[in-house]
Amino acid sequence: MEVIRSNFKDNLSKVYEAIEEADFLAIDGEFSGISDGPSVSALTNGFDTPEERYQKLKKHSMDFLLFQFGLCTFKYDHTEEKYIMKSFNFYIFPKPFNRSSPDVKFVCQSSSIDFLANQGFDFNKVFRNGIPYLNQEEERQLREQYDEKRSQANGAGSLSYISPNATKCPVVIPEDQKKIIDKIVEQIEEFLKNEENESLELEPCTGFQRKLIYQTLSWKYPKGIHVETLESDKKERYIVISKVDEEERKRREQQKQAKEQEELNDAVGFSRVVHAIANSGKLVIGHNMLLDVMHTIHQFYCPLPDDLSEFKEVTSCVFPRLLDTKLMASTQPFKDIINNTSLAELEKRLKEVPFSPPKVESAEGFPSYDTASEQLHEAGYDAYITGLCFISMANFLGSFLSPPKNHVSARSKLIEPFFNKLFLMRVMDIPYLNLQGPDLQPKRDHVLHVTFPKEWKTSDLYQLFSAFGNIQVSWIDDTSAFVSLSQPEQVQIAVNTSRYAESYRIQTYAEYVEKKHEEKRAKRKCTEDSWKEMERKRLKTQGSPYISQSRYYCINRFPLSTIFLPWNSSWQAGV
Amino acid sequence: MEVIRSNFKDNLSKVYEAIEEADFLAIDGEFSGISDGPSVSALTNGFDTPEERYQKLKKHSMDFLLFQFGLCTFKYDHTEEKYIMKSFNFYIFPKPFNRSSPDVKFVCQSSSIDFLANQGFDFNKVFRNGIPYLNQEEERQLREQYDEKRSQANGAGSLSYISPNATKCPVVIPEDQKKIIDKIVEQIEEFLKNEENESLELEPCTGFQRKLIYQTLSWKYPKGIHVETLESDKKERYIVISKVDEEERKRREQQKQAKEQEELNDAVGFSRVVHAIANSGKLVIGHNMLLDVMHTIHQFYCPLPDDLSEFKEVTSCVFPRLLDTKLMASTQPFKDIINNTSLAELEKRLKEVPFSPPKVESAEGFPSYDTASEQLHEAGYDAYITGLCFISMANFLGSFLSPPKNHVSARSKLIEPFFNKLFLMRVMDIPYLNLQGPDLQPKRDHVLHVTFPKEWKTSDLYQLFSAFGNIQVSWIDDTSAFVSLSQPEQVQIAVNTSRYAESYRIQTYAEYVEKKHEEKRAKRKCTEDSWKEMERKRLKTQGSPYISQSRYYCINRFPLSTIFLPWNSSWQAGV
Repeated sequence: MEVIRSNFKDNLSKVYEAIEEADFLAIDGEFSGISDGPSVSALTNGFDTPEERYQKLKKHSMDFLLFQFGLCTFKYDHTEEKYIMKSFNFYIFPKPFNRSSPDVKFVCQSSSIDFLANQGFDFNKVFRNGIPYLNQEEERQLREQYDEKRSQANGAGSLSYISPNATKCPVVIPEDQKKIIDKIVEQIEEFLKNEENESLELEPCTGFQRKLIYQTLSWKYPKGIHVETLESDKKERYIVISKVDEEERKRREQQKQAKEQEELNDAVGFSRVVHAIANSGKLVIGHNMLLDVMHTIHQFYCPLPDDLSEFKEVTSCVFPRLLDTKLMASTQPFKDIINNTSLAELEKRLKEVPFSPPKVESAEGFPSYDTASEQLHEAGYDAYITGLCFISMANFLGSFLSPPKNHVSARSKLIEPFFNKLFLMRVMDIPYLNLQGPDLQPKRDHVLHVTFPKEWKTSDLYQLFSAFGNIQVSWIDDTSAFVSLSQPEQVQIAVNTSRYAESYRIQTYAEYVEKKHEEKRAKRKCTEDSWKEMERKRLKTQGSPYISQSRYYCINRFPLSTIFLPWNSSWQAGV
Repeated sequence: MEVIRSNFKDNLSKVYEAIEEADFLAIDGEFSGISDGPSVSALTNGFDTPEERYQKLKKHSMDFLLFQFGLCTFKYDHTEEKYIMKSFNFYIFPKPFNRSSPDVKFVCQSSSIDFLANQGFDFNKVFRNGIPYLNQEEERQLREQYDEKRSQANGAGSLSYISPNATKCPVVIPEDQKKIIDKIVEQIEEFLKNEENESLELEPCTGFQRKLIYQTLSWKYPKGIHVETLESDKKERYIVISKVDEEERKRREQQKQAKEQEELNDAVGFSRVVHAIANSGKLVIGHNMLLDVMHTIHQFYCPLPDDLSEFKEVTSCVFPRLLDTKLMASTQPFKDIINNTSLAELEKRLKEVPFSPPKVESAEGFPSYDTASEQLHEAGYDAYITGLCFISMANFLGSFLSPPKNHVSARSKLIEPFFNKLFLMRVMDIPYLNLQGPDLQPKRDHVLHVTFPKEWKTSDLYQLFSAFGNIQVSWIDDTSAFVSLSQPEQVQIAVNTSRYAESYRIQTYAEYVEKKHEEKRAKRKCTEDSWKEMERKRLKTQGSPYISQSRYYCINRFPLSTIFLPWNSSWQAGV
């Protein structure tokens, strides 16, 4: 089912229901680009550590837009012995919803756009009819804006107009504004005396003037009038005052609040779907899904944290149970019988012996995908076949049981070993990112780190190491690369012979790691020192207790135990 | 006429002809965004100097894509006393043309995209069928790539595989590759002996191996065989060898070169249109065209230079004669009779007394635009009505002559005062950027520069200056603004009274400018010192004369007298 801005609200309950009843969910995202760095190969060095890979993706991939989100829900029908699936293909676009809303800038990578264009991707649907979204901080800010507007209408004054030195009190009316305000009060006195008119439109004025008017009227006329701001065709804002009794005033107030709540919901938009997925606690399947997970969190929850360990924490809240079909297919017992783990090839392979094609039907009222006429790189389709792959592989595990089982559910112990491990693209010796604990630390005693002039090519490295037999080169950047030798014993020989070289430098992998850690420590110390210095200066000049608080806030940017509480009631049960 | 990738080549000669015969040209661009800075208002401070404005636009507007370019050519028909116009609406997209071509990343601003979406803009046409382009440096590099490939095929060896220490000589075949190469030579010997087969396909191999094969074959078999690289369906590259006599070999070589030239032309794509405009030396009209000019140069010529003065030099080469209709309409004798200079309003106003609607018809075979059903923000339409505005205003100038003239041509002395002055948006006291010389330097002795805590709003500034009557606030950023007082005499009073203030700081505009210059001088000195230091170190370690050359190249990035020579023959005559 295609979900765009115009049919989103009408279909949201269908989406919620599908998630709620599902045994597992499959997701996929399409992005406006992959890497804003020099090249994708520079992004994926064969000897990246998981931390390094995370940092690179965070730095070079997060400015792109996730503009299509595929969600496919799978529910097992025990009587019919088949899965019933519901597939949703969401188009996403951060359409600004009002004048003060975030004006998101996102990057497009020509090659990615061209690739999607060749697949028939409909960009008009994204840009004209994409569903908006807000992350948690933006949602909080918008909620505050509404609260503020309301308290302003109630005469409580608004924070944003108050200078930091003032306490929370109404604005003093500046000399040059007094006349205008007095004149408006006169106008209103006249209007209240006169029984003919039910409402009075004031001239359009500035936001500051509106603030002064609201403030003045709320203490001059706490009852008997209703004040609201409207916008003219010319986008000018003006105040309308109407006579109301207390009951009518309350009714209007409630109406307005309901409307505001709806506007807020509209603005949160697609994020509500992601919240529902998170709240469900259901198993979420993806294929090579690290980027999908990172983008989903970055776009709909919060900017990605600085460290991998914090990212793991956030992920465990948003997606408590993940399974990556590319990692599953690259692991025993599948590894030896599956040659190509790209999604399209995997889906084909898993229909053949020793696997069996899964029995899946679309639910009533949901369109079905035909795997014979591939619609690859439509997010909804990719999510669908990712689900198919998972079912085939899970069922295959059942054949090892005695007696063998044809159906292995998403809750089976058999698939638990694959939970929360995300495939790491093109890393030679670390198969996955472990979301549930520390990552694997392979021995890299056959690896050298080489620095050289930027004119060097791979062939220069082959020449340099021609005495050492087969080597493998993994470029880091223009002037450095990892070179792995076939024998660890050769490592020291290479380092020794290079000692007097002028144009290049060779060190062992261990030396390289040590130096990097040292640099990090030095940098952290530097930041800490400059922080202390800054804090010393600020305390000296301002002496406010606010500052130390703000630091605390900064460090604990993810109070994970509480941040997801508002919509978290059903989550604990799901884990 | 709509011009997209698929009909670009077929229509290029029409475009050339239209430019060649025109009396003047009108242009307009649509971009994927305006400002990646905090807000557009921060981009356009009322007291920006032209240099500051240029720097801001360069920093905050150039990462967007100019993805629609409107060109409308106007030719006067003296017998019929009317203009004949040809309008072109080009869709532009940097589609990568091969694996080593630049993979352009560009930014989209949601509000701009949403705005265009509401105007019915067709994003699919841009991304699926936009015309590619190259700037001059990219064109040069691509040309070099072809030359290199050719010389590689001819066995001269290729620079890119040679380390900086080596002279231009063939690569030494590494030990581990020798066997493979020897085997291939054997294969070829066999193939040459055997009279049955006309061609031999080698196994797919790496780029480095292909290089070794080309090199080996070119000295082993300088005659009698033709070697070329093809790509399989699986995108694997493999070498095909065929038996040819000398004549056939030359014919194939020429065919290949012609094909390469065509590929190069295709890649240069839309830039060829911009080159033709530049070469024509014709008067180019735009409405509020500073951003259009900057984007056009940035995207199709070269990254924008660091200084405004250099930008003026480059612009004078690309667009020797420009005229901005917004500036024209804001200048006497138009200023007093034109209230609204926005393009749509201006076009309407200029149909009415004392102006006369211009007589313009589309050329045969060209669709006509109807100004009654506005198609605003389609670049071709905007260029068209910009041209209409120019004609009306130019003709109006003729009414001041005695005897009055109904038609004033684009070559008339009457319009020369408006040449090469670009409208400056929202600058209070400098109407235009002067491309032909130094800019106006208005007295700003009634202006103050104020620094304050980031929580301050405009109302805080009004309060602070409440004793000084009417003020105007121009925000610079979160913590500073220009405040202009109505009386220059008040400036010193304000500075004096603020001397002991803690939360804010006030200085005169002159003091602000002086401090800024000082900082710039200090920064430049710093850069120069670190440069000297770097050069000293590099000379010490490498001792190569190459370095001082590279510095020279860097400073003279725009050898303007020569850079446009290749397609410059007709240009001088046009000036």
